[in-house]
Amino acid sequence: MSALRFVDLPSPFPFRRGGAIRGARIAYETWGTLAATRDNAVLILTGLSPGAHAASSPDDPSLGWWEEMIGPGRPIDTNRWFVICVNSLGSCKGSTGPASIDPATGRPYGPDFPDLSIEDIAAAAWEVVAALGIERLAAVIGPSMGGMTAQALALLRPEACPHLVLISSAPHAEPFALAVRSLQREAIRLDPDWNAGRYTVDRGPIHGMRLARKLGVMTYRSPAEWKERFGRARIDQPGKAPFDREFQIETYLESHAQRFVGSFDPNSYLWLSRAMDWFDLAEHGGTVEAAYQRMAVRRALVIGVETDILFPLAQQEEIAEGLRLAGAAVDFVALPSIQGHDAFLVDFRRFAPPIARFFRSIG
Amino acid sequence: MSALRFVDLPSPFPFRRGGAIRGARIAYETWGTLAATRDNAVLILTGLSPGAHAASSPDDPSLGWWEEMIGPGRPIDTNRWFVICVNSLGSCKGSTGPASIDPATGRPYGPDFPDLSIEDIAAAAWEVVAALGIERLAAVIGPSMGGMTAQALALLRPEACPHLVLISSAPHAEPFALAVRSLQREAIRLDPDWNAGRYTVDRGPIHGMRLARKLGVMTYRSPAEWKERFGRARIDQPGKAPFDREFQIETYLESHAQRFVGSFDPNSYLWLSRAMDWFDLAEHGGTVEAAYQRMAVRRALVIGVETDILFPLAQQEEIAEGLRLAGAAVDFVALPSIQGHDAFLVDFRRFAPPIARFFRSIG
Repeated sequence: MSALRFVDLPSPFPFRRGGAIRGARIAYETWGTLAATRDNAVLILTGLSPGAHAASSPDDPSLGWWEEMIGPGRPIDTNRWFVICVNSLGSCKGSTGPASIDPATGRPYGPDFPDLSIEDIAAAAWEVVAALGIERLAAVIGPSMGGMTAQALALLRPEACPHLVLISSAPHAEPFALAVRSLQREAIRLDPDWNAGRYTVDRGPIHGMRLARKLGVMTYRSPAEWKERFGRARIDQPGKAPFDREFQIETYLESHAQRFVGSFDPNSYLWLSRAMDWFDLAEHGGTVEAAYQRMAVRRALVIGVETDILFPLAQQEEIAEGLRLAGAAVDFVALPSIQGHDAFLVDFRRFAPPIARFFRSIG
Repeated sequence: MSALRFVDLPSPFPFRRGGAIRGARIAYETWGTLAATRDNAVLILTGLSPGAHAASSPDDPSLGWWEEMIGPGRPIDTNRWFVICVNSLGSCKGSTGPASIDPATGRPYGPDFPDLSIEDIAAAAWEVVAALGIERLAAVIGPSMGGMTAQALALLRPEACPHLVLISSAPHAEPFALAVRSLQREAIRLDPDWNAGRYTVDRGPIHGMRLARKLGVMTYRSPAEWKERFGRARIDQPGKAPFDREFQIETYLESHAQRFVGSFDPNSYLWLSRAMDWFDLAEHGGTVEAAYQRMAVRRALVIGVETDILFPLAQQEEIAEGLRLAGAAVDFVALPSIQGHDAFLVDFRRFAPPIARFFRSIG
């Protein structure tokens, strides 16, 4: 069962850095009911890997990636709000991306997919909002990469984005994050089965993807969490080959990697990863501060996590300060979660209260 | 020109985890003059990759990896001390390691090199000390992996190690460091040219080594340093191929990787990396605290760096506390360097004073 719906993008749909695609579409899901006045819509823009299935629904009762946050009586209360979550342009969870068939050739775009930017993802997400007849969003929520997309949308459609919730995001990537993603992409590209992007479904760069995902997980969590969860605990039955996994932390990484390899397209990963590196709010107005002035944010919630090494807390402070200087009322919340960048996916005890409070304040 | 000298290990030289090698040797260099009383010897044990060339000398005027720290009037003053630096057993800078010829077969040990432990490296280093007729060291200095080796030596020869200088080291690795090294080894092993350890000199796992080294450099430095040095600066003439390097941080990592690939044996890297993962002071007495009780350290300097993510400051505090509980007089110094784990190699302004002070105190 799937609750996915689709909106066709204008055809051709032009990309910011050149090129265009035809016959493209964006997948999304919704929860709650759009008010007759169409003023209760909340748009969720996702991190790199999740799809549009943020929460369960009658059409798809499987648990979503933000299940505890969305629903009747939950922090994003679907008795009050009409919640939309879109799968990013360039992803592989229903929206058009490098793994989609190029109508011009009848084969996957692969390396011919245009250079993707965060601004393109925002523009495509807006097409879903517009197709639903919504002119102004009650709120836009973006964790991680989704926070970059949310900021891009607030620049593209300032009047439609008065209220932002930005979680563990950034106005642009700093060099440590650039290095992590560059290395992840290199691991995939070095895998001979990547084949310059022209792999087949049954023979893709799985080794490169495993390395990339493990490196990702290492930057999504925190050393403190792992020390608490795993310490130096060994596997009960380690393999017998030299250098086989021996510590539980190695098994944890491997199981994360295995799950990811089977569920995410390598080219989508490359294109989205590079889009994050390229994104720079300073390109909109000359400086990061000027970019915030070009938005029309009235109220914002900015949440960061002290142990996040990929989107560090200092960047959340930078966002909060930039929005404040631009005249927004900003709640800045620094959480002591030990789950690092991923805390918004798991530490609901800490994340639920400020998000619930924010939605009550705009409700 | 080389200042390397060699000491033959007892043959066979048995390994802690089983196996033995024959006809093995350890490379070392020295600076200063051994006193007639043989009581002024300072032993330096290195991190994973450096060789014995810690400083220049008449026989080898090229700069060493700790040049500013060793010499007449320098913090480790060669007018006073006879300084020895050994290349670790298992390395490839003169000491016997996986790339060395196995006399039994006439070809490199490769995957037949016995499982290496930090304790083996310490035992082999001790053979150099003994061959020089030294029964008691004035001090043992160990940064990073060398600090693990120094602690292993202080357990193996307590009476010979009354004074320790431990820098950015650990009583055992925590799961984040285990994860980093596991991933580095996986990148090398996944490279088809690793060939289960039976590669040739002209065709080795260079891609895997490049990935491993880049990941290493990412954990040796700090996000704060890179933000200051590189920010989001672009390369002047980026490559034209898709996903070519574009940011200066990517070029920095690539140049580090290129230098390393040409100068370090992949199997040595694997064997030393795993030795670090295996090392656990708690194996000597049941707990880390008990292990310190088995040493006979009278005075120690323990230095950590606030931005070190690989051997975090909390582990330096653990070492200092363990030594204190065992009766040692401990100077614990936490440095605010922004160069992370590698700070001891570059931030001499901060590292020189406490080290100079320590050597005056035992002088």
